[in-house]
Amino acid sequence: MGRWEPDARGRLARSALELYAERGFDQTTVAEIARRAGLTERTFFRHFADKREVLFHGSRALEELLVNAVTGAPEATAPMDAIAAALDVAGGMFEERREYARRRQAVVAAHAELRERELIKLASLAASLAGALRGRGVAEPAASLAAEAGIAVFKIAFERWAGDAGGPDLPRLMRESFDELRAVTAGA
Amino acid sequence: MGRWEPDARGRLARSALELYAERGFDQTTVAEIARRAGLTERTFFRHFADKREVLFHGSRALEELLVNAVTGAPEATAPMDAIAAALDVAGGMFEERREYARRRQAVVAAHAELRERELIKLASLAASLAGALRGRGVAEPAASLAAEAGIAVFKIAFERWAGDAGGPDLPRLMRESFDELRAVTAGA
Repeated sequence: MGRWEPDARGRLARSALELYAERGFDQTTVAEIARRAGLTERTFFRHFADKREVLFHGSRALEELLVNAVTGAPEATAPMDAIAAALDVAGGMFEERREYARRRQAVVAAHAELRERELIKLASLAASLAGALRGRGVAEPAASLAAEAGIAVFKIAFERWAGDAGGPDLPRLMRESFDELRAVTAGA
Repeated sequence: MGRWEPDARGRLARSALELYAERGFDQTTVAEIARRAGLTERTFFRHFADKREVLFHGSRALEELLVNAVTGAPEATAPMDAIAAALDVAGGMFEERREYARRRQAVVAAHAELRERELIKLASLAASLAGALRGRGVAEPAASLAAEAGIAVFKIAFERWAGDAGGPDLPRLMRESFDELRAVTAGA
């Protein structure tokens, strides 16, 4: 059967996030998420493997976007510039859904297992970016160092951005963090 | 009862590592580890909470060592220099037990859940180092960026070191990685 539900995925994700924020992640069931979205559990499981997946389904798209941006950067681009340009594109994308990203971040930050899952996704992102740099001919350990440093900038800027509703936009915070990293590294 | 067993902890750790390498982590039981060490399961559980703990019991000592080195660095030391000096001390300590560290690394690298545990320990290390820098008056985001960059250097140098038995020592690989990070960051 399964009649078409307009934006079922988006409605499920928003309902899930509301419930996680209201009751906590552990206390929320898939049945409740589906009910809040006006959909069935069956529809939920057509879109997400489980309730944790709602929070992390975007990580594959983010990885693809970053890897493609690094791979597609002009040939003469320095490794760190390729990473910075890729993060700038991602930052613009997050900026468009700041409120959603902020709410998601608050749910993840409040739950140890979700924080761990986030760290693992970030490490996987760094490994993919290092691979993309090696594909551009960057040698190790420069490729891994640039990728890890870029992800550190992203992580720190993202946390500041998500924690400060009225503050600067994410691309700007990432540029500031890159400058700060350069200053702190040059001092060593 | 419990008669005193000379270096029970070290014998258990070495036996565990041998068995993890021979059979795999999942296929090894605590009973087998104790038997190989010539000790009882009861003695095992006096020293370690579970068989995973054998691989990670050193992380608290490492964290203490790094945090104390950062906190105790001379007042005028720049943030990244304080981190580099701390990692240099830790590197010397690892160098003294290179063979053990290499074997442990091979076991962790072969097992997804252990790799995740390692990432989480490294993230916790970065958070503690950032805290130690803030304790020295370093502002955010500089404190977190220096700490995350330092842990990236440590991670990448450690993997190279553990994977190359005849290569340079760990303190040297970390110094090279710091130089490389500076070069790659300055280029951005």
